[in-house]
Amino acid sequence: MDIASLIGLIGALGMIIGAMITAGGVGPFIDVASILIVFGGTLFAVMYKCTMPVFLRSWGAMAKAFMPKPASQEELIGKMVELSDLARKSGLMALESVEVPDRFFSKGLQMLVDGADEQKMVKQLNEEIKAMKRRHSEVHEAVRGWIDIAPAMGMIGTLIGLVQMLGNMADPKAIGPAMAVALLTTLYGAFIANVLFGPILAKLEGYSAHEALYREMVIAGLRNIARGESGRNVQEQMVAVMPPKLQTKLMAA
Amino acid sequence: MDIASLIGLIGALGMIIGAMITAGGVGPFIDVASILIVFGGTLFAVMYKCTMPVFLRSWGAMAKAFMPKPASQEELIGKMVELSDLARKSGLMALESVEVPDRFFSKGLQMLVDGADEQKMVKQLNEEIKAMKRRHSEVHEAVRGWIDIAPAMGMIGTLIGLVQMLGNMADPKAIGPAMAVALLTTLYGAFIANVLFGPILAKLEGYSAHEALYREMVIAGLRNIARGESGRNVQEQMVAVMPPKLQTKLMAA
Amino acid sequence: MDIASLIGLIGALGMIIGAMITAGGVGPFIDVASILIVFGGTLFAVMYKCTMPVFLRSWGAMAKAFMPKPASQEELIGKMVELSDLARKSGLMALESVEVPDRFFSKGLQMLVDGADEQKMVKQLNEEIKAMKRRHSEVHEAVRGWIDIAPAMGMIGTLIGLVQMLGNMADPKAIGPAMAVALLTTLYGAFIANVLFGPILAKLEGYSAHEALYREMVIAGLRNIARGESGRNVQEQMVAVMPPKLQTKLMAA
Amino acid sequence: MDIASLIGLIGALGMIIGAMITAGGVGPFIDVASILIVFGGTLFAVMYKCTMPVFLRSWGAMAKAFMPKPASQEELIGKMVELSDLARKSGLMALESVEVPDRFFSKGLQMLVDGADEQKMVKQLNEEIKAMKRRHSEVHEAVRGWIDIAPAMGMIGTLIGLVQMLGNMADPKAIGPAMAVALLTTLYGAFIANVLFGPILAKLEGYSAHEALYREMVIAGLRNIARGESGRNVQEQMVAVMPPKLQTKLMAA
Amino acid sequence: MDIASLIGLIGALGMIIGAMITAGGVGPFIDVASILIVFGGTLFAVMYKCTMPVFLRSWGAMAKAFMPKPASQEELIGKMVELSDLARKSGLMALESVEVPDRFFSKGLQMLVDGADEQKMVKQLNEEIKAMKRRHSEVHEAVRGWIDIAPAMGMIGTLIGLVQMLGNMADPKAIGPAMAVALLTTLYGAFIANVLFGPILAKLEGYSAHEALYREMVIAGLRNIARGESGRNVQEQMVAVMPPKLQTKLMAA
Repeated sequence: MDIASLIGLIGALGMIIGAMITAGGVGPFIDVASILIVFGGTLFAVMYKCTMPVFLRSWGAMAKAFMPKPASQEELIGKMVELSDLARKSGLMALESVEVPDRFFSKGLQMLVDGADEQKMVKQLNEEIKAMKRRHSEVHEAVRGWIDIAPAMGMIGTLIGLVQMLGNMADPKAIGPAMAVALLTTLYGAFIANVLFGPILAKLEGYSAHEALYREMVIAGLRNIARGESGRNVQEQMVAVMPPKLQTKLMAA
Repeated sequence: MDIASLIGLIGALGMIIGAMITAGGVGPFIDVASILIVFGGTLFAVMYKCTMPVFLRSWGAMAKAFMPKPASQEELIGKMVELSDLARKSGLMALESVEVPDRFFSKGLQMLVDGADEQKMVKQLNEEIKAMKRRHSEVHEAVRGWIDIAPAMGMIGTLIGLVQMLGNMADPKAIGPAMAVALLTTLYGAFIANVLFGPILAKLEGYSAHEALYREMVIAGLRNIARGESGRNVQEQMVAVMPPKLQTKLMAA
Repeated sequence: MDIASLIGLIGALGMIIGAMITAGGVGPFIDVASILIVFGGTLFAVMYKCTMPVFLRSWGAMAKAFMPKPASQEELIGKMVELSDLARKSGLMALESVEVPDRFFSKGLQMLVDGADEQKMVKQLNEEIKAMKRRHSEVHEAVRGWIDIAPAMGMIGTLIGLVQMLGNMADPKAIGPAMAVALLTTLYGAFIANVLFGPILAKLEGYSAHEALYREMVIAGLRNIARGESGRNVQEQMVAVMPPKLQTKLMAA
Repeated sequence: MDIASLIGLIGALGMIIGAMITAGGVGPFIDVASILIVFGGTLFAVMYKCTMPVFLRSWGAMAKAFMPKPASQEELIGKMVELSDLARKSGLMALESVEVPDRFFSKGLQMLVDGADEQKMVKQLNEEIKAMKRRHSEVHEAVRGWIDIAPAMGMIGTLIGLVQMLGNMADPKAIGPAMAVALLTTLYGAFIANVLFGPILAKLEGYSAHEALYREMVIAGLRNIARGESGRNVQEQMVAVMPPKLQTKLMAA
Repeated sequence: MDIASLIGLIGALGMIIGAMITAGGVGPFIDVASILIVFGGTLFAVMYKCTMPVFLRSWGAMAKAFMPKPASQEELIGKMVELSDLARKSGLMALESVEVPDRFFSKGLQMLVDGADEQKMVKQLNEEIKAMKRRHSEVHEAVRGWIDIAPAMGMIGTLIGLVQMLGNMADPKAIGPAMAVALLTTLYGAFIANVLFGPILAKLEGYSAHEALYREMVIAGLRNIARGESGRNVQEQMVAVMPPKLQTKLMAA
């Protein structure tokens, strides 16, 4: 559970709804036709932008931003130290039955046990990381679609409202409310782009970078095991990516 | 048939036309002079931006976004496994009569059969990929022209309308409708840039990246065949670019 | 003669002038003071941005966008094939008196005839390409100056007009026309940036990329001649940068 | 104490408050609901964008922009010269008890004393620099969140205010003040993005670059010590990164 | 004296002041409070953005844009040819007493005379170029501060003016002039960013690139001297960076 995502989203929504209530209630800020053109129009335009599988995958990815299971770098280092000591004591074969926390790690380990040479293993695992980044960035493009298109849809909605309003100004009293409704789509567009999808894109990109770094650490660790380095040496090299305080703590352990 | 393109475009258009109908009918949103300056002006400015052949080619490319025939990576892997096994059994000459799904693959295979050395084959095929990317990005530039210039043309049209309106404000009743018409060009500009051409550019760039990746996979596969790798090895290396689930499925096969 | 430039520019201008005429004549859209601040102000600001020689050179470059003499890649390949066959038959010395279509080609050929070693020739010709790109991008910066500064000058002009108008609102009837004039500079700025100079910058960058590619092809061809490759081999390698259809045609010849 | 940060921030605030006072007092520019939506809303949206630890760390980083302790390059060069002379005279072991100004330097020195080979030391220290840059850029992303989101929140607040105002225009006298309040959020958004957080982000990026450069100098120095270069040689190489005037001064010393 | 800078700046200022005079005199466009918030506020915010030394240095750099002493590439080539011939005739020692046009050249030459090996000399001089680029780009960041922050300060000033104006609309006659004053800060912001500092940043970046290129040419020349190349060879290689016409002229000499 990513507590910052939850507090952040609820808090931001709360502030905006609070401002609406202060301004006299949420009612005047809801207009079904406006919601349709901005939310619906953007939804379809994003679908038009992506291929269908990527469009569908993007929803799962965004859901994960609230329930991430980020792989722990500390745990990985601990495991690697354990494995390298085991490999030195009992040979690479002994790693066969070891349980590791994720599929990528397990795949690399299997290659090691199968006797793949280091160069080839590194190359293939790096290919996997590149392919993962490519898949993630396709999803990010879909999320970026919401950020790019929603404000444009909001503007299109407002222009439609304005043109209609300016076309029949017979009743001066109707001008204010008509303009208020016209502005709603711009408001929705700004809300979708900056509050709903903007921050989540940054979060997804952060998780993606974290995952790539984690996998690079797995590769670095496996290389060291392949070379028969001692657990202490493996640890020393892998902690370099951790913040200074954690380094001291980990090295002391 | 790219179902997402079709649903997306029709859906987005539907939402916008729906909003116009809700606002009192599509009629007031159509103005021939405004259409001419935004659609026509942008068309000519894009032509001014590109060379003629690129301008013409861009239309074909956009049509393809609705009817793509994306090369299948799974099928490619299957074919490569088959070919590498065949080459190991019967020699490279046996590949001569094999049918392959696309011109690029067939060209590389021909070079292999003709006895070109690996390095040279790779270099020349990579040149082809680079040349393809260059041709694609010329087309993308043309599409980007619509996205960049249409809003500017919309703004120019609105300014022309405003200047004309402000110049003769004798009849106060005419101000509203005149301004409504002036705003139409801005509406058209936003529509062209964000609904029609914006998403299609992203889609074209996606297809282009997919095609480049496919061709890189062809090269990787041909290199392995040239080296006499077994089908199993070829498969193992090539699946690295596929999503995890597909990998498991393909390797199990 | 670049037909797309001519049709494009005339067409775009026609659309805009047409919209003005529809709006009641071109007259109200012409204001000498506004033209001075936007065209003149931008001209001087661009001069302030560049050095004098680059500023002057940029005009020649833009004129060329209408009268380009793009070097033909097909003709180059034909010439290269001819030269490589000649060199194999009669030695590099025989290339001395051959006529080639451009100065860059001729310079490289001269180096070959003078017995320069391949590495050195490639290095020096690559330096020339880099220097050409540098000179071109200086000119592009000057053109970009128009695109960046003209809208700003337009806005400055409009603000000057608005401040003056708001300062004396004694006569309500004068407000409309005064505001119309104030908006003219914004109109001019958008026109200069998006219709006049925006597309031409893209065209210049395209020609520059084409020229660089052509020169890289010259280098590739000369390397092959230096190595004594046959004309057929030279052709095979050089056509890789051409579109598929042209490849087939050229290879068949 | 970074005197420029302090003078700059106080001066800029002073100018803005001064303009408010000139315009009739600070009072009308303070509105609690507006402050809540812009400051609060942005705060939560930034939290939603980052992970919690990064969000919390960003505050410490910004505080440091006012109280930086930038490592002195001159002092570092002096120390390196001293150490290299010491190492030549008494061997690397003699460096054990030497005191150095920062943790990174001390870590590298320890590796040297422990007999790590040069290549490995350089690799590991470079890893540390990369990890530091990664941590810093996470924090910068958080700060950039304020710059990106605050103007959007300001616009959302203004739109809420406008919609509410346009919905009830019964009392024409209330329109002016209501619109004034609506504009306040835009004002706050521009203020947060451009005066509070914009400059501080540039400052943090500057310190981060300075720190990375300092650490690269530490590595360069340690390499020279490992190779047994004389103090004079070490100095000559390290001063290359200093401005010309300082170079002359340092070399004369 | 950079004649383009002077003509450009004076011309652009003249156009703007001319437009003000046409609009009824410069008087209404000057407002001390507005000047303070835009010029003063931006000044302080830029100071807040930079460190103090960089802020101070940026003024000297901008002054130099009007009085540049760009190093002459032609003169450099001439000197290099002379030196290489001298070195071949009388040995590297003979270069000791030679006078060279700039500090960087002289430093490299000194290293050559001192017998530094080529690799080391190149590495150290490249370090100097990198350090120079770093120092220049710090200054450019400061100038960019003006371009980024001034329009924001203008907008903040205008918002302050609008809020104050909307708060007391008792006297309808005061609305126009109050709004005129409010718009002045936006005008100042656009003027500072686009007329004063925008072009000068491009000019500074141009000079910086020119200086870096010049220094790379110095390194290339010195390498050739170290290798004992003849003057003719040195010239041939160095002219590659000059425009075609100058090449012909220089080679003919």
